[in-house]
Amino acid sequence: MIRAGIIGATGYAGAELVRILTAHRETEIVWYGSRSYIEQAYGDIYRNMFEIVEASCLDDNLEELADRADVIFTATPQGYLASVLNDRILEKAKIVDLSADYRLKDVHVYESWYGISHGSPQYLAEAVYGLCELNREEIKKARLVANPGCYTTCSIVTAWPLVKAGLIDPDTLIVDAKSGTSGAGRGAKTANLFCEVNENMKAYGVASHRHTPEIEQQLGYGAGRPVTVSFTPHLAPMNRGILVTAYASLRRKADGSLPGDDEIRAAYHTCYEDETFIRILPENICPETRWVEGSNYVDVNCKTDPRTGRVIMMGALDNLVKGAAGQAVQNMNLLFGLPESEGLSMVPVFP
Amino acid sequence: MIRAGIIGATGYAGAELVRILTAHRETEIVWYGSRSYIEQAYGDIYRNMFEIVEASCLDDNLEELADRADVIFTATPQGYLASVLNDRILEKAKIVDLSADYRLKDVHVYESWYGISHGSPQYLAEAVYGLCELNREEIKKARLVANPGCYTTCSIVTAWPLVKAGLIDPDTLIVDAKSGTSGAGRGAKTANLFCEVNENMKAYGVASHRHTPEIEQQLGYGAGRPVTVSFTPHLAPMNRGILVTAYASLRRKADGSLPGDDEIRAAYHTCYEDETFIRILPENICPETRWVEGSNYVDVNCKTDPRTGRVIMMGALDNLVKGAAGQAVQNMNLLFGLPESEGLSMVPVFP
Amino acid sequence: MIRAGIIGATGYAGAELVRILTAHRETEIVWYGSRSYIEQAYGDIYRNMFEIVEASCLDDNLEELADRADVIFTATPQGYLASVLNDRILEKAKIVDLSADYRLKDVHVYESWYGISHGSPQYLAEAVYGLCELNREEIKKARLVANPGCYTTCSIVTAWPLVKAGLIDPDTLIVDAKSGTSGAGRGAKTANLFCEVNENMKAYGVASHRHTPEIEQQLGYGAGRPVTVSFTPHLAPMNRGILVTAYASLRRKADGSLPGDDEIRAAYHTCYEDETFIRILPENICPETRWVEGSNYVDVNCKTDPRTGRVIMMGALDNLVKGAAGQAVQNMNLLFGLPESEGLSMVPVFP
Amino acid sequence: MIRAGIIGATGYAGAELVRILTAHRETEIVWYGSRSYIEQAYGDIYRNMFEIVEASCLDDNLEELADRADVIFTATPQGYLASVLNDRILEKAKIVDLSADYRLKDVHVYESWYGISHGSPQYLAEAVYGLCELNREEIKKARLVANPGCYTTCSIVTAWPLVKAGLIDPDTLIVDAKSGTSGAGRGAKTANLFCEVNENMKAYGVASHRHTPEIEQQLGYGAGRPVTVSFTPHLAPMNRGILVTAYASLRRKADGSLPGDDEIRAAYHTCYEDETFIRILPENICPETRWVEGSNYVDVNCKTDPRTGRVIMMGALDNLVKGAAGQAVQNMNLLFGLPESEGLSMVPVFP
Repeated sequence: MIRAGIIGATGYAGAELVRILTAHRETEIVWYGSRSYIEQAYGDIYRNMFEIVEASCLDDNLEELADRADVIFTATPQGYLASVLNDRILEKAKIVDLSADYRLKDVHVYESWYGISHGSPQYLAEAVYGLCELNREEIKKARLVANPGCYTTCSIVTAWPLVKAGLIDPDTLIVDAKSGTSGAGRGAKTANLFCEVNENMKAYGVASHRHTPEIEQQLGYGAGRPVTVSFTPHLAPMNRGILVTAYASLRRKADGSLPGDDEIRAAYHTCYEDETFIRILPENICPETRWVEGSNYVDVNCKTDPRTGRVIMMGALDNLVKGAAGQAVQNMNLLFGLPESEGLSMVPVFP
Repeated sequence: MIRAGIIGATGYAGAELVRILTAHRETEIVWYGSRSYIEQAYGDIYRNMFEIVEASCLDDNLEELADRADVIFTATPQGYLASVLNDRILEKAKIVDLSADYRLKDVHVYESWYGISHGSPQYLAEAVYGLCELNREEIKKARLVANPGCYTTCSIVTAWPLVKAGLIDPDTLIVDAKSGTSGAGRGAKTANLFCEVNENMKAYGVASHRHTPEIEQQLGYGAGRPVTVSFTPHLAPMNRGILVTAYASLRRKADGSLPGDDEIRAAYHTCYEDETFIRILPENICPETRWVEGSNYVDVNCKTDPRTGRVIMMGALDNLVKGAAGQAVQNMNLLFGLPESEGLSMVPVFP
Repeated sequence: MIRAGIIGATGYAGAELVRILTAHRETEIVWYGSRSYIEQAYGDIYRNMFEIVEASCLDDNLEELADRADVIFTATPQGYLASVLNDRILEKAKIVDLSADYRLKDVHVYESWYGISHGSPQYLAEAVYGLCELNREEIKKARLVANPGCYTTCSIVTAWPLVKAGLIDPDTLIVDAKSGTSGAGRGAKTANLFCEVNENMKAYGVASHRHTPEIEQQLGYGAGRPVTVSFTPHLAPMNRGILVTAYASLRRKADGSLPGDDEIRAAYHTCYEDETFIRILPENICPETRWVEGSNYVDVNCKTDPRTGRVIMMGALDNLVKGAAGQAVQNMNLLFGLPESEGLSMVPVFP
Repeated sequence: MIRAGIIGATGYAGAELVRILTAHRETEIVWYGSRSYIEQAYGDIYRNMFEIVEASCLDDNLEELADRADVIFTATPQGYLASVLNDRILEKAKIVDLSADYRLKDVHVYESWYGISHGSPQYLAEAVYGLCELNREEIKKARLVANPGCYTTCSIVTAWPLVKAGLIDPDTLIVDAKSGTSGAGRGAKTANLFCEVNENMKAYGVASHRHTPEIEQQLGYGAGRPVTVSFTPHLAPMNRGILVTAYASLRRKADGSLPGDDEIRAAYHTCYEDETFIRILPENICPETRWVEGSNYVDVNCKTDPRTGRVIMMGALDNLVKGAAGQAVQNMNLLFGLPESEGLSMVPVFP
């Protein structure tokens, strides 16, 4: 059995890790870290876990945890892991970091978008960006996996095939994303109260959201050069789910014509044909968050618009699963040589 | 592998059966029956099942299905199964009926509350009421299991220990139940449109809901005599979940005193101590539907009120799981000698 | 123009007062009191009021406010008004208190249920309970109006006619109430976050909610003797609305028969025939919160159940309007001799 | 008093017309047209109107209605009004058509996007597009007003100032819109059931939604030449509200620099400074649907993104008010020389 520790086990992403790992046949959770609830029974904080998890919460002691665990998941605020990570820890345990600390390769980009200084930039080069479908082989050999952000995963998976195939001009890419409210975390803020979120839609972080450089970095790899994208997140009155609608101008072919839906769709099949967790929907069927809720799937599709010369790309995932805890477990499976879908075959729950 | 057939596979309860059976290690679904969607791919109707279920829907042919399946689940309108069931079918396959056709032992009660005549009352005596925690041994030997209603399961599990122990006067029992909207089914009715249900609470079926005699029949067994209860269902703006709040007058003890919370809680422990799927919550913690969503649990608790001499009993379950498809699979497990929780260990999904 | 001041203008009830008074033709708001937002523009806190309300928030200075205002609304925590009220204030301005401080006539009952000592019990006798339909004439002459609680208004209006007419045994009364989440206030608490409330139903304050003695006090007046009731509030995933389902045993008539629906409904008509804001629904139509949302209406109805000898009474209102701010304005209208429905003729908003 | 008739009074837009006109001081409704509910009391269909509207529904007889009414609102399916309109009707009553029949000037564009032939193209030239803030003077003189679509109103109001001022390249315009479910109407469709819409976000009508040519036509007037835009609507799990997020490339100035937020915002002020129903929010504050719910406001704002050279424009309105019935009444006010905001000063309802 793989011994897993979680730092930040009582946030929504941490709790989802607990839900998934509890059903994972090769793992046992040995550390439920939660500074806010030390010594409280986990099942009293998340009562869905009542009589399922018997353990109580422990403090956030990464050094001690590294002695006890084979893998450590950090579902912690930005800057935490960067400030405490060191070689001793990395030698003892694999790390899957759900924060943003090791996602961006350029420390200046990190410090500029996050507004904090990075405590251990020496590990940035080593860290592997844990978008499993893109970096599978590198992840298998990693010690430190930077688990992608929720918006980021959905945005990249949605746009990647067309960027990679050169079918769109990546600098025209506009990503309009809609997220359920669990993405805002479990902190007690007025803005996230039921009555403030319910019956409402809003954009936020316009032209300034921190997932932007992460999207740009990865798509830049696909394009073979730096790209700049517009990214706008929105808060939707639902618990889970991210829907991405992305727009880009199609590149005309040598004969001046636009690529058609067939060519466009072929690019998706080329990239994702064999992927368990990415489902390319049938033509003209739009992804919807309800069809992936509770599961590790990303549903994608696209449609060209000859009138405007653009393609509309769409993707949907569960922000707590493929957008956080599910992908973290997928990364763990890769790190330990387990079947990639172990513990992740949850059928989406509907309605 | 147990070969399972579903008649009514495209209603919400049928779809939940598909979700649960897909993850069940000892079962394969051989028949997705749906008169409305014959020959359509199941994954096109319920896109959560896309690339998970490859089969298409078949017509509702119970005779043919009985040749192909070991167990048949009927998630059909009231009256359907009663009108087609016969000995040949019962000799070939076990039946778990999610409709009300065989739940009430007295055909006159059935015909009076449902307003239809019963097509095969000869099987009423044989049918076993499939509330697993109460009738486990009988179910194991049955051919025909009448899977309980969603409100009924929650109401009975919540009140049973105190009725059985004689701690309350069963004729004072009042059951006030609140249900998510999936209980209303997938039929296209104006009353169930999003804008009609959202931001609304209402009672319905006041003093006339068909689950009333079912509750009375079972609690009557517990009381050792017929009982009459008040039952009022309410529609709540959520997808899943039933919450029952039940009220009854406590029976005074010989010395004139009322039983206390300890005695009351002891009755619950006596009945449910060893039950996997019934969780007795800690004192003063109220059941909430969110903590059981997606799972087969029923959470129960109670509180005495010395001011009024009453006890307030509370229970919560997922109407599509323990209230329908989950309990149906639990019944199947009993019928085939499998571990009772096989395929039912889903951790509740929150948020 | 009546000059109105609000202490607690940035809670949900205070904001609803602002919404209603802004459209009231005989009133101007001269004081937006909010300790938390002093000197901040009101339209920046509640952006629905942007360009409608130009004023900024002021501190909670009741003495100074009494010099400037003709009427003061206190939408404040329990205990606040009791601790600062004095004769000087009462001589200068009329007070409509939306807190519980002057609702209960017996200071011991107040102190026992609220767990705080009462700062000015000398005003309890004078204060008039502001349920307008029951106490209209007393309110007109009052200086200090105790505006009823939201659950209380709905519960009392629903049960009053049958208690008053002696048609039910008041000690058998059980009130099961369901409330939208705005009733929980705008404080930043984890329990009221969107993801915690959404897709959930729960009871709370079982056998201990503070609105219980308020219901008992008023219904006791109707019964002509003290009554004891069971009251259980529930939190529902919607913004506004309270639905009350109340149960009681019918009193048999001299001939041993039960009163029928006609007699029962006649009692409602006797009490409410001429009331603008109480609508008795047609037979067999259940009140629903959506039909009163945004308005000052209470919709009521009832149904007898000959099987159990009980009657089920139902009522629905908007907790922020008739359950708080609307009734407060209705009280103000009575205090100042205005038409009772001035500023309150908002048509319910649906959907 | 203006005598108003409504054809299609029992759809959501029709019901909102009833709500608004009921509170309008210069209007009485003389005809509640509803083919589906002929002779049924209006207050039985929309119970929020119980005891407010006493009338019953009438058939859809436009000829007869024209004799009885000064203004006719048609909230009817596409094609209906075009098929029955004639000179006699137009000579007797003013028409405000909430359908799309007279919005598009080019009958070929109409027939191509709507897939039906137009029954009376001879009135297309005369019809005035009823976006009040853009066409105020023409509306005052009109007989036939084509009330704009909900998405269209929000999209045009949001983008108009920058198109008009030439600050953006209109052919780069991408409009990503999110709508509450009341926009889908009250028809009984499975896709609009509570459980299908709740906890879900989806795009629909991708690259093919009928509001696209309407947006293009109006913005073309602003640009002084035809424009082509991308428009993608999304369905959000809420009753009311449309949020538009629009993206376009800024035009560089002669010196090669991009216009800044100040210049951009100035364009909004130039267009909307004196508009009652358009609120330009303070810098960095994003429009949210909750702040306009139940009211006739459109809230707008924008933000430049120097990184991408784009501007993000945002707008929010209530689809049933400014997006349908409210704007229709605003048009009626203009047609009859009433104050433009008569009956429309509803304060937004929050929460």
